[in-house]
Amino acid sequence: MIQDKIIPYEQLPGEYMDRGTFFGDGVYEVLRSYNGRIFALEDHLERFGRSLREIGIEDIDIETVRDKVLRTFEQAAIPNARIYFHITRGSGPRNHSADKALQPNFLLMLTEVPDCGSDKENGVSVSTFPDWRWKRCDIKSLNLLANVLARMDAGKKGCSEAILVNEAGEITEGAASAFFAIRAGAKQLLTRPLGNEILPSITRRHVMQLSQNTGLTVVETALTPAEAIRCDELFLAVTTKDIVPVVEFDGRKIGDGRPGSLTQTLIGQFAMLVAETTR
Amino acid sequence: MIQDKIIPYEQLPGEYMDRGTFFGDGVYEVLRSYNGRIFALEDHLERFGRSLREIGIEDIDIETVRDKVLRTFEQAAIPNARIYFHITRGSGPRNHSADKALQPNFLLMLTEVPDCGSDKENGVSVSTFPDWRWKRCDIKSLNLLANVLARMDAGKKGCSEAILVNEAGEITEGAASAFFAIRAGAKQLLTRPLGNEILPSITRRHVMQLSQNTGLTVVETALTPAEAIRCDELFLAVTTKDIVPVVEFDGRKIGDGRPGSLTQTLIGQFAMLVAETTR
Repeated sequence: MIQDKIIPYEQLPGEYMDRGTFFGDGVYEVLRSYNGRIFALEDHLERFGRSLREIGIEDIDIETVRDKVLRTFEQAAIPNARIYFHITRGSGPRNHSADKALQPNFLLMLTEVPDCGSDKENGVSVSTFPDWRWKRCDIKSLNLLANVLARMDAGKKGCSEAILVNEAGEITEGAASAFFAIRAGAKQLLTRPLGNEILPSITRRHVMQLSQNTGLTVVETALTPAEAIRCDELFLAVTTKDIVPVVEFDGRKIGDGRPGSLTQTLIGQFAMLVAETTR
Repeated sequence: MIQDKIIPYEQLPGEYMDRGTFFGDGVYEVLRSYNGRIFALEDHLERFGRSLREIGIEDIDIETVRDKVLRTFEQAAIPNARIYFHITRGSGPRNHSADKALQPNFLLMLTEVPDCGSDKENGVSVSTFPDWRWKRCDIKSLNLLANVLARMDAGKKGCSEAILVNEAGEITEGAASAFFAIRAGAKQLLTRPLGNEILPSITRRHVMQLSQNTGLTVVETALTPAEAIRCDELFLAVTTKDIVPVVEFDGRKIGDGRPGSLTQTLIGQFAMLVAETTR
């Protein structure tokens, strides 16, 4: 039965029998273009390949994925595009053990990147939520219900992102972003070290590289919410918006409640990196 | 793009934009019938209602779900049916925060229960795997990649179920079953207490009630794999097969390597319960 309609089981279309839906048995990427040029395509393809390997989806030719991305991007002709794609293990009868003969499913959606100028200029508010995610957050999988519930909670509180806090009381990352803090006096840029608890964010890596130009020293360490609130500046790093200042954390103003100057410097640096690499 | 084919984004059918696929943003149930009568329908509907509430999918009338189950079951006329159904938050543009106006998607699949006579008679082998699942395993959600990976690992080892072991070194449950152990001398039936780490299994509850007829005392406690191996009998409880003896655990024989006598008694008791309640 689909919605209200009974159909013979044998006639159920493959898209309704996708292991992506039954189990979240798939992995994805989100990348974007700036002014007609895709940013960090190879980084995203490399991470995608790793995600596929980690969950044992084999025989995917990454060259083919690259071709699909480029072909859709060219045809769409959207200069600032958000490109989402996923591969699931395939469609078949619902059974945890996957049949070896399954053919993976590919889906790609290309849409215009929503304007985030106001977020960048004014900063955003965030709120904390327990990190209920699984123990392999280093894999960019379709199991995102914990992220959805966190983001829904943030939305109810008038916040645009949820900052996840694990059982040890430490911030891991945002529901769909990396999390950074700046101690201006110490000239430190703080972010959690990589591991199974966070996604190896590509924007995070670029931010860490750029920070060298700004005189900031990267310190990879875990922060508690109380420690984060006491920092001078906070920001999120995410592919579709690169750097977004955080001006309120669990209802507490960060700094003077305006985007911090070092964060603004990093936003400028990121824009230069984008201009150079997509030239 | 679907597989290889580029189509305009506006023409992408709703089934490809299901939050069930993007996020695993939905909950499900599996129930079965014995000889033309559905077993424990109300229990499953009650748990389904709780799962929906826990993830904030509102305005679902459980009466309507019951009607759909009964209507499909009647029309299919399969006496021993496996009935799977799920509800996702709906289809729409991919965004962690869900639009309030989304219409939930319903899918139900009814197939014949595969024969498990041999498993019941000879018992099955199981192997352990790290419990990578999220922190709300009490919700029967579509985020099942950790379960799939565990079951795939078990399959490679020639085992039919994976027993999940958390970071504390304790067994939580099977990848798709509840886990029980028996200490015959002490007349104890051991199983993990309910909590966020396991599903409130309906078969588990029935087994615990039946054990009273067999002189076993239920002890709700966590076991390590080493402790489980030293028990006299082990078994799995799962809706589609009710009770399945475990005769090998991580390559070690349990008891004499044959289904235990107390487990067989419980299997008989369960069959009587089924006969009574589906009469």
